[in-house]
Order: sequence, then C-alpha cells, then structure tokens
Amino acid sequence: MGARRQLVARSPSGDHRAPTYQLSIQPCTPREIKSGYLAIPPICKRSISHLKCLQKGSGRVLPRSLQLIFQEGNDVKLYYSPGACSMASHVILHEIGKPFEIEKVNTKTKVMDSGRDYWAINPKGAVPALELGDGEILTEGPAILQYIADSNGATELAPPAGTLARARVHEMLSFVGSELHKAFSPLFQPGKSDAEKEAAREAVGKKFGWLETCLSDGRAYLTGSAFTVADAYAFVVASWANFTGISLAAWPNLKAYVERIAARPSVQATLKAEGLA
Amino acid sequence: MGARRQLVARSPSGDHRAPTYQLSIQPCTPREIKSGYLAIPPICKRSISHLKCLQKGSGRVLPRSLQLIFQEGNDVKLYYSPGACSMASHVILHEIGKPFEIEKVNTKTKVMDSGRDYWAINPKGAVPALELGDGEILTEGPAILQYIADSNGATELAPPAGTLARARVHEMLSFVGSELHKAFSPLFQPGKSDAEKEAAREAVGKKFGWLETCLSDGRAYLTGSAFTVADAYAFVVASWANFTGISLAAWPNLKAYVERIAARPSVQATLKAEGLA
Repeated sequence: MGARRQLVARSPSGDHRAPTYQLSIQPCTPREIKSGYLAIPPICKRSISHLKCLQKGSGRVLPRSLQLIFQEGNDVKLYYSPGACSMASHVILHEIGKPFEIEKVNTKTKVMDSGRDYWAINPKGAVPALELGDGEILTEGPAILQYIADSNGATELAPPAGTLARARVHEMLSFVGSELHKAFSPLFQPGKSDAEKEAAREAVGKKFGWLETCLSDGRAYLTGSAFTVADAYAFVVASWANFTGISLAAWPNLKAYVERIAARPSVQATLKAEGLA
Repeated sequence: MGARRQLVARSPSGDHRAPTYQLSIQPCTPREIKSGYLAIPPICKRSISHLKCLQKGSGRVLPRSLQLIFQEGNDVKLYYSPGACSMASHVILHEIGKPFEIEKVNTKTKVMDSGRDYWAINPKGAVPALELGDGEILTEGPAILQYIADSNGATELAPPAGTLARARVHEMLSFVGSELHKAFSPLFQPGKSDAEKEAAREAVGKKFGWLETCLSDGRAYLTGSAFTVADAYAFVVASWANFTGISLAAWPNLKAYVERIAARPSVQATLKAEGLA
C-alpha cells in the first residue's frame, strides 16, 4: 500500500494572510498543474474543517505553504464497531501483522471516537470502511478482506485469482454475506415481533445447516485445510448466535469450527482491541 | 478450464454380463488405483441412473469397458433460470466468447429441462451454478462471475487481484449482492402484504440512489470506464425494476446505465438464449 499523500494548505491568491485556503493532494496530476485548480476527492474534504479549526485555535496566520501531515505514517486505517462484521477485517489485519490504525464508530449516531461524522467516511453509513495510504476509502467487508490479503500477497488467506481455490473463497464470502449475514439482520433491528425474530432464527438455522454440511467431511476450515478471509467473516457472523438466542449445539462441526477460530491469536488480539475480551 | 473427464462403466468382477457396473472417472487417482475402488463425486452420481437407463433401454449387455462420454467437449455448463441473477453469469460467458452449455432450471420445482433434479447439482437450490470441465460445481453468482473472468484472463472484466481496481469491483459485487439484490427479495416472495412490498420498493429505491450517486460523475460503468463483472450483476438486478412496479425515471443516470448495458451484444445474445427477447 502506497505512502499516504500529504495535504498542503495554501492561499490561492498567494497572499498568506488570505482567510481561505485550498487543500491540495501531492503529487498533483498534470491536469491539476495545467488548470491551476486542484481536485479534492470527497475523502479529503473533511480536512478543510480540520484546517479551519487549526487556524482558529492557534490564532496564527497560516504560512503561505503549510504542510499538514494528515495522518502519521502510511498505515491503513479500519473504521469499525465492536463485534460487528468489521471484526472480520480487523482479524485479517492482525493475521497480516503489519501496523494499522483503527477508529471506533458509533453505528447508531454515526459519530466516531474522534467526534467526526462517519457519513463523511462512508456515505452508506455501514462499517467496515478501510482508509488506504493515499486517502482512498474502501467499503464492503468482503472487498476489504480480499484487498488486505491480496495487497499483502497473503495467498493462503486469499488464493490467487483464477484458481478454483479462490473461487471457493469467493463462494463462501458470497454465501456468508448474502445469506447468513442477512438472515441475522431482523435479530438486530428494533421493532421486530417475537414471531419475526423466531422466523429469523429458523432462517439462520438453515444457513448454519449448510455450513455444518460443508464441515462434516472433517475439513478444518470452510474451503479446506487453510484459514482464509472467508473463515474470518463466517466466524464473526456465526458468533452472533451468542447474542441472539441461538445455540450452536445443534451444529457440532460448526461449533467446533467457531471455537477453533476463536483460539487464533489474531482473534484474541482483535477481541481485546475492540474491548470484548 | 480443463477437459471434462470421461465416465467409464465397467463390471467390477470383470464379467461383462454382471448386472451392476461401477462408474469411474478418468484419470484415476493413485489412491483409487491402489484400492481398486473408485471415488465418485456427488456430481457424477446422477450418471449412475443414466447408465442404468441406457442398459435397460437398449436391452444390450454392456461391454466390459464402455466409455460413456458424459458431456461432449470440455465446455463449462451454466444452470440458469430466465431473467434470474444467473443472467449475469450468462452475459459474462457471452462476453468471453468461448463455447459453453446452458441448462434451464425451474426454480420452483427444482427440476431441470432434462428432467433431472437440480438439488443434486446445487444442494442450496439457487441458480446460478456452473459445472466446470472436471465436473466440479461452483455456486454463488459473484463467485461464478469472477471465476469465468479470472480463468479466462479477462482483466478488463475483473482486474488483477491486489489492485484497487479489483477491490472496487469486489465492493460493487458485494453491494449489489448483499444490499440491492436482497432488497428486491420481498417483491418476489409470495404472501407478502402490499405494505411489505411498498417497504421493499422504498428499500430498493435507497439502493438505487447510491448507484445513482456513483454514476453521477459521468462514469460509464460502476467502477469507471470499463464494463466489469460487477456491471453485469448490477444490470440484471436493476432490470428487475421493470417487473416490480419501480420506475427507473427517478434515477436518470442509472436508467441510462441500464440502457447502455442492455445494448451490448452479450446481453442481447443472453436475452435471446433465455427466451426473453
């Protein structure tokens, strides 16, 4: 992942006492240099208020060219909510073992720990989101999981594209995302009746039944003997059984699978970082 | 994609008049050769009844070693239902342009055009499923879409893993699969009240709103200037608006996008093959 580009504040008129500043992203594109105007992606717009605060708070006139190092280092940053599906991406970041940052999001108020508005990070409002070194924001759990593995060359976590092994990981990611995760949704929505919640538990049970079938040949993980990004996602979603009145005892292979993954150091580190252990 | 292996019927005793036959898959594995027994994957088990029919119908005693060419050629085979999300995989097969087979599935009865039981192909019951040259069955639309593109080196349809371009395709595949597709579900389920259907239309509208936002910068396709597997999926799902009382007029960029994709030769060929044009 590339180094995070720096944000540069400067007066468009060249007058360093001018009250407004443009923010540019270095390096500029040839088009930006030619036009004299700088395109600011949505992700960087929030830094304008950051800059204004700095100007106001310090009482100093900003120098003509002020380098604002927006984030230290060039690490990726995960926006998460404790125990939510973002936990799968958090686990995979720990599996990779490189430095990364995290920031907690209150998914109800959409306010982050820093007080910033999460809608400005992900206009869809959902966690996870991954901020890359260059300020790009990637959303959707399965996309983030695969990007972390692929961009780090972790072919055990996500086998090379074009292989059947990778297709099996895609297959499980899709099943967990579109079927299992969605089956749980009514159990987390306020205002659902007991009958609706019971129907959701039955639907979850059917999906658990499929995972149990897959695991019944003795394989350690959903696609074989290796732990992949699909397992991180399946583990987190299956663990929601604990909070929704579903006992995994009816699916012994699945239960053992969840316990096996829970014991991984990456999962233990994630639970601790999210304040869950 | 590898050549489809042949099914071979032979008498276990060597007596060509024996009433039962084993089916083997060539080439045999070293383990099969050593044990003298041949593992038959679930996908091949249906051919046992096929073989029995042949034996019964012909009235002939099968020769000691009969080669049953189970499928001609080494093409992949798509199991589909007209207009269902399987259509996206069908479109991508046409984009690739190599020969392939298709078989229609009645998604209500789970019976295929050949009279065979679809549960034996995909125990989850859903379309699409893709049968590979070696008899492996791949399920889940996003997995099939990516496998077709990746295994054919179609990097425009699915950019290389590890790039941000591929992550953007994953992001859209996930959004379309887990959000847009699922928002439509109540509109296809029997027994839903008018109020529930109206709520579903509103939910679909919100998802359409996000696609409209993405397309509002003038890009031709969801992730940029190139048509990708994510567009095939988004196109098929967005087209369901026509059958569910939703007018795309409220989202002009999305409407133009759907029309743009509908004009592709691959889509026209797919509609014709599925009996929809």
